[in-house]
Amino acid sequence: MSSSDIFIGETIGTAVLILLGGGVCAAVTLKASKARNAGWLAIAFGWGFAVMTAVYVSGPVSGAHLNPAVTLALAIKNGAWADVPVYVAGQLLGAMIGAALVWVAYYGQFRAHLTDREIVGGPGAQATAAQAVEAREKGAGPVLGIFSTGPEIRNAVQNLATEIVGTVVLILAVLTQGLNDQGNGLGVLGGLITALVVVSIGLSLGGPTGYAINPARDLGPRIVHALLPLPNKGGSDWSYAWVPVVGPLVGGAVAAGLYDVAFA
Amino acid sequence: MSSSDIFIGETIGTAVLILLGGGVCAAVTLKASKARNAGWLAIAFGWGFAVMTAVYVSGPVSGAHLNPAVTLALAIKNGAWADVPVYVAGQLLGAMIGAALVWVAYYGQFRAHLTDREIVGGPGAQATAAQAVEAREKGAGPVLGIFSTGPEIRNAVQNLATEIVGTVVLILAVLTQGLNDQGNGLGVLGGLITALVVVSIGLSLGGPTGYAINPARDLGPRIVHALLPLPNKGGSDWSYAWVPVVGPLVGGAVAAGLYDVAFA
Amino acid sequence: MSSSDIFIGETIGTAVLILLGGGVCAAVTLKASKARNAGWLAIAFGWGFAVMTAVYVSGPVSGAHLNPAVTLALAIKNGAWADVPVYVAGQLLGAMIGAALVWVAYYGQFRAHLTDREIVGGPGAQATAAQAVEAREKGAGPVLGIFSTGPEIRNAVQNLATEIVGTVVLILAVLTQGLNDQGNGLGVLGGLITALVVVSIGLSLGGPTGYAINPARDLGPRIVHALLPLPNKGGSDWSYAWVPVVGPLVGGAVAAGLYDVAFA
Amino acid sequence: MSSSDIFIGETIGTAVLILLGGGVCAAVTLKASKARNAGWLAIAFGWGFAVMTAVYVSGPVSGAHLNPAVTLALAIKNGAWADVPVYVAGQLLGAMIGAALVWVAYYGQFRAHLTDREIVGGPGAQATAAQAVEAREKGAGPVLGIFSTGPEIRNAVQNLATEIVGTVVLILAVLTQGLNDQGNGLGVLGGLITALVVVSIGLSLGGPTGYAINPARDLGPRIVHALLPLPNKGGSDWSYAWVPVVGPLVGGAVAAGLYDVAFA
Repeated sequence: MSSSDIFIGETIGTAVLILLGGGVCAAVTLKASKARNAGWLAIAFGWGFAVMTAVYVSGPVSGAHLNPAVTLALAIKNGAWADVPVYVAGQLLGAMIGAALVWVAYYGQFRAHLTDREIVGGPGAQATAAQAVEAREKGAGPVLGIFSTGPEIRNAVQNLATEIVGTVVLILAVLTQGLNDQGNGLGVLGGLITALVVVSIGLSLGGPTGYAINPARDLGPRIVHALLPLPNKGGSDWSYAWVPVVGPLVGGAVAAGLYDVAFA
Repeated sequence: MSSSDIFIGETIGTAVLILLGGGVCAAVTLKASKARNAGWLAIAFGWGFAVMTAVYVSGPVSGAHLNPAVTLALAIKNGAWADVPVYVAGQLLGAMIGAALVWVAYYGQFRAHLTDREIVGGPGAQATAAQAVEAREKGAGPVLGIFSTGPEIRNAVQNLATEIVGTVVLILAVLTQGLNDQGNGLGVLGGLITALVVVSIGLSLGGPTGYAINPARDLGPRIVHALLPLPNKGGSDWSYAWVPVVGPLVGGAVAAGLYDVAFA
Repeated sequence: MSSSDIFIGETIGTAVLILLGGGVCAAVTLKASKARNAGWLAIAFGWGFAVMTAVYVSGPVSGAHLNPAVTLALAIKNGAWADVPVYVAGQLLGAMIGAALVWVAYYGQFRAHLTDREIVGGPGAQATAAQAVEAREKGAGPVLGIFSTGPEIRNAVQNLATEIVGTVVLILAVLTQGLNDQGNGLGVLGGLITALVVVSIGLSLGGPTGYAINPARDLGPRIVHALLPLPNKGGSDWSYAWVPVVGPLVGGAVAAGLYDVAFA
Repeated sequence: MSSSDIFIGETIGTAVLILLGGGVCAAVTLKASKARNAGWLAIAFGWGFAVMTAVYVSGPVSGAHLNPAVTLALAIKNGAWADVPVYVAGQLLGAMIGAALVWVAYYGQFRAHLTDREIVGGPGAQATAAQAVEAREKGAGPVLGIFSTGPEIRNAVQNLATEIVGTVVLILAVLTQGLNDQGNGLGVLGGLITALVVVSIGLSLGGPTGYAINPARDLGPRIVHALLPLPNKGGSDWSYAWVPVVGPLVGGAVAAGLYDVAFA
């Protein structure tokens, strides 16, 4: 694959991933969404099928890494590092585009949610600046949650551990796919199976931190949250931002090492 | 494929699509349905598996476009326009047949729902004409929603944008299927994967407008809603009807252009 | 296939189908079940994956009809009637065995449910005979519903129409599978796809009558309900029993005719 | 396969299975989990996709038994017993590692859940030892339920019967997979189909006992529950521990016998 194919494929693929993944968070969170309060099962299936869609769209062009932790693990496994920067650049740019498209698709819902006094201050008319400040404490969390992950219990060591464990499962499943595929079609099934692995991680290991398990998935949308002109949006929680970057990268490296010891 | 195969396949396939898709909306909405209030996840899976069933039923006969936006995008990609009118005619006729079959399958539920004073006017016996008029404001929406889509927040530009974004994802996934299928079986998996892409779009991008992403899916049933002798059914919201026609067509064209630039 | 293979395969397969299908109804309905009130989505997926499991278990032995409507439609399509009685006999016997196994697996739950005064008469200790009689009106329905289907609105013509429409979709999907499978693997995917078609029918067309769409699925368990020594079980609603037998058979014949006209 | 491959594959595979399976129970049960109260459908899909992930990760190395009942049934069917101890040892060790990893991933949630007076004694501050004792009755159940299964209605004969019935379905589906796979790809689909069979058993037969259907899945985590330094964790319910070991083994043997009679 040429560098340009890699960059284009990863950009489009990760944009689709974050558009659909961030989209389900918006759908379940925002006022005036038909899917409001659809629950955790909707979140888990939504992110899983987002991965599937993105894999089939970008797979033929770039191989559909869509995740710097996948790129890192494959580089460790194959000893090939040359394309890593292009992959990661495409992933980060794509994640930002995807997050911006969530804002486009849910523009009216964001406005209704963030300016309604019922949510930002009290029942009735639009919020004043004072009410918005007051609402940041409670209101910012859910809206930031449409872009990036955050922990239920804030503890860097615990949160890192959870992200590492989840990412090890993901990367182990990705690395062992080649072993299952002996000219019998797993290649084409791979996107579906990876999707259901992601559903599984979401259902099982998403409870404490919201399962970033992908540095680009978390960092790209967080940058977009910081840049977007959303009213009353609150802070972007930069103090936590390193956890869903470092945790998945460590997880990817651990999985690559485990694969090397146990499966190679 | 002959024109008659295309017409028959698209008519039957789109009828199955709308029967099952409209059916899940009826199942979740109407009084005296066992699935009442089953929630957005049921809607999203219901429409997704409706697509899957329709694709496998009509695929061998007409190629299972089932959506004028798919037909348009393939015509742009392949530069072949001759069959477009036959495809679209079959799709629109099939959508109308499917909507009428929803009415057949849920006939008793429609009557119970629309004539019960609890819903159209107050608790107790059947509704009077005055109560029905009074109920149109609140009651018509949900029943029209079994046939056609409508926005949570009515704003033509925003609603168009949401429909365009959703359709671009759908069509991009459809157009890239051929790239994944290198004699390894995606052809036969295609119906399942497209179904799960539709589940994904429903979960993630359905919140603002109810994801028509298919002009025939929205217009055909809206015509049937206007024609059916349902008591107290309210208006068919024709002022919105152009949005779920134009948005998906624009989305199909955008996706075909994007495919041409990035993947061809 | 030999008659004995057909009989054994259909008996075991239909037993698995009804054990898992009736099982999910018991799981969602009965007091002291961990899955109580899991909702319609659980019912629809439960029945769908019941079909999938039964198809893969019995497919290699008998071809996995598991449904007299399937057997009828294939006999019409192929003009081959000799094996029909063996298929149907295995299906009916299997359905009865499956229903009895639901009773075995949920024995304690059935007892707790049917003898608790909270359910059959009032809060507190065990029910008296008088309370049981009084409870039959409201209580019998749910427990019979673990075995057989029943309509939300009782109207033979409407209920027949709903069962016919649902069965036409099922049988059309079964008959067209052969057209999709051109040595490319749908054969092996068939069980999964049929399962998801059944999920679709459940979500979309199950609201009015509970989607028997299979005479053996309804009649066999109804016989077992009549025979089992359940306390306070109420009647077996024989006046409705012909609808989920005749409706699916008519639907199978209609689908075979439609297939002959449109697809052959 | 070498003994060392078997041991490594079963250990890693069963660790993944229990990490994801126990994880979904933690996610749905524990305070301060984003997935709290996600319901039985989440449990059933979570365990099913846990099986799928574990099968694809360990399949190429050890064949992915992951369950002593599978190992027993295959030994009976093939008359080959030499590897049984290695399989079972790997499965038990893997189950213990998986349960410990659930504790790592949900460490903060376990602490918050078990030391909050709202849960262990009353609203407000941390629990005293006396309150913890008082809470053991009600509080210990759910937390033990993250590790091991327990019955809704405690009756050894009934509980055994339920576990046997569920395991027969599982093992029959596993044993008949070879018959479906005639060089057409079921091999690679097998993990997905087995996953959905497990979803089916969970939805349909999980209500009374929580469907262990796997001795290692229940015993390994129960040992870990007994060893872990969890505050206020309550007892490990050893009086019930034999049921989810004996029941699945009997079920495996019954299924192997049934397969031999009906399918071989």
